[in-house]
Amino acid sequence: MKIKYELIKNDGKARYGKLITNHGTFETPMFMPVGTLANVKMLTPEELKAVHSAVILSNTYHLWLRPGADIVAKAGGLHKFMNYDGPILTDSGGFQVFSLAKNKEKDITEEGVHFKSHIDGKSLFLTPEISMEIQNKLDSDIAMSFDECIPYPATYEYAKQSTERTLRWAKRGKEAFHNENQSLFGIVQGGEYTDLREFSAKETVKLGFDGYSIGGTSVGEDKKTMYKMIDDAIKYLPIDKPRYLMGVGDPIDLLEGVRRGVDMFDCVLPTRIARHANAFTHYGKINLRNAKYKEDFTPIDDCDCYTCKHYTKAYLRHLFVANEGLGGRLLSIHNIRFLIRMMEEMRNAIKEDRFLEYKEDFLKKYLG
Amino acid sequence: MKIKYELIKNDGKARYGKLITNHGTFETPMFMPVGTLANVKMLTPEELKAVHSAVILSNTYHLWLRPGADIVAKAGGLHKFMNYDGPILTDSGGFQVFSLAKNKEKDITEEGVHFKSHIDGKSLFLTPEISMEIQNKLDSDIAMSFDECIPYPATYEYAKQSTERTLRWAKRGKEAFHNENQSLFGIVQGGEYTDLREFSAKETVKLGFDGYSIGGTSVGEDKKTMYKMIDDAIKYLPIDKPRYLMGVGDPIDLLEGVRRGVDMFDCVLPTRIARHANAFTHYGKINLRNAKYKEDFTPIDDCDCYTCKHYTKAYLRHLFVANEGLGGRLLSIHNIRFLIRMMEEMRNAIKEDRFLEYKEDFLKKYLG
Repeated sequence: MKIKYELIKNDGKARYGKLITNHGTFETPMFMPVGTLANVKMLTPEELKAVHSAVILSNTYHLWLRPGADIVAKAGGLHKFMNYDGPILTDSGGFQVFSLAKNKEKDITEEGVHFKSHIDGKSLFLTPEISMEIQNKLDSDIAMSFDECIPYPATYEYAKQSTERTLRWAKRGKEAFHNENQSLFGIVQGGEYTDLREFSAKETVKLGFDGYSIGGTSVGEDKKTMYKMIDDAIKYLPIDKPRYLMGVGDPIDLLEGVRRGVDMFDCVLPTRIARHANAFTHYGKINLRNAKYKEDFTPIDDCDCYTCKHYTKAYLRHLFVANEGLGGRLLSIHNIRFLIRMMEEMRNAIKEDRFLEYKEDFLKKYLG
Repeated sequence: MKIKYELIKNDGKARYGKLITNHGTFETPMFMPVGTLANVKMLTPEELKAVHSAVILSNTYHLWLRPGADIVAKAGGLHKFMNYDGPILTDSGGFQVFSLAKNKEKDITEEGVHFKSHIDGKSLFLTPEISMEIQNKLDSDIAMSFDECIPYPATYEYAKQSTERTLRWAKRGKEAFHNENQSLFGIVQGGEYTDLREFSAKETVKLGFDGYSIGGTSVGEDKKTMYKMIDDAIKYLPIDKPRYLMGVGDPIDLLEGVRRGVDMFDCVLPTRIARHANAFTHYGKINLRNAKYKEDFTPIDDCDCYTCKHYTKAYLRHLFVANEGLGGRLLSIHNIRFLIRMMEEMRNAIKEDRFLEYKEDFLKKYLG
């Protein structure tokens, strides 16, 4: 079965809806923690469920290299392999080609991309067909089209050529796709150029996908530009399909994305910053290594997560200062819960037609 | 309240009993996972309980340096600080002075030991009185006397002088000890010398402690020597007090220790080897990085732990090959459960007067 999206209610452009998948239904807007290598770093599926995380993202490129798509397929797919029975979205590998391969070692042709493995420098070749084959084998609930993530800034000429090629790749990928239990999203590119975003959105929608992603954001552009990229693309996306803003997870960006009509987000941010002792709180980000928490026997935040219910800042600080891995684990739980809870609060605000009010209240506290 | 030990039944020298502490009662013989820095690496207290771990060890020396005994005391003691409500035993720091300080940088005097911090090289001074003060502040259920761990091999003359000094330190420690909710164990030293072990055991017992540890093992001696050290000491220990063999956790040594009348063991082994992908199984130790597990979709062992119930060798191998911390966490759970379960099986065997039979059966499988 393909996924099914139901738009339940708008508040301005912000949307409250739900997404029905073969591995459960979740409400949107929703944040997806990242399980790069078939696990959300340090955490078990039970811990993800405990923070009401409803869907995760896993990385095609990384799983292609380790353990390999065939091993995951032999295990019975990614869900069985990693013991996770909730919905999984996989990216296409396009972003990793952009972020992990050095420019010199990357050769983009019409056929696909030649690049070098970030692990051992081995030559790799990824095409729309190969990306689909890998994702079909991983058997995620939602797969992504293979795209080129355009750097920022890029010349108009480069952005245009790349956007057109990504469209041709989307078509080829769709034709090669052959897993009836899996859904496929198209990705809108176009760089920072309004007319290219419009072109990309309209043409991608014409090809017809189960949902639409906005790509090429979070690549070094300023926030104003990112929000413009969203605006320029989202107005051409159909209201009856989910919209996914790729690689975005900063609390402020989540608010701005939802405000603009985005339904899904993913980012390594909550787990990555957790490993460096950074915690989200309603009063902004804090670093738990700070000496001022040495004797602070209160929880990180007013929060219902396992970590906040059981541990103090002083204890967490101790774990980080002593380089104990449990610190990153406990803080990952909190940071994911923080973003998941934000999404819950945003959904409630949309339901009650007070999204902008919620956003202002949140930012007032968060930015101090 | 001080701890209370009840010997319930002997099978040869092997003992089945129970230990009543302020934080719960547990059956013996028992293995104690090590929570060096106020956490068993990567694991939560709930996970320890789930594998039926009933008591943990934490390290005085490490907690003295980070976060410091005063911070733990201000948190309300070690139990509250680390969110663990089961029994905790603390060592005295003596073993870390032996294992972490370089010989050149260590000066043992009658008063105590001058040595350098393994973290920043700072000069440190540990005495029986300071060790007791730290442990009193940590507020563990069971504290250890401050001792010198004699290297192996050592000359008779050195071992004799050291053993006599450890006795004087035990007396000083006992006098300085002032926490009525905490129990104090004496430590038998004596190196590899039968008469010194006898002397140390008898004199330590004369001082009168709540339990007795056998120290100076697991310092590079062969197994035969270790077992002789146990035999030479244990025959002089009172039957109505618990006996604790320090730093020992190899499955074969657990069997040999229990056979000789040991009630308690601790070791970093199950968690340390787990972080290096080594798993205990009933058929011996295996390394999960081995390529032969690449497509092995069966659990590590016939085991009731969370890891074996939910994950395959192929998945765990993938986590280790990809350097994902979840691998060490999941394997720590299994390895601790393996030893805890061994202790359960040993207790049952003692109850049913078939300890030696159990031991032979176990070893036949384990050693192949």
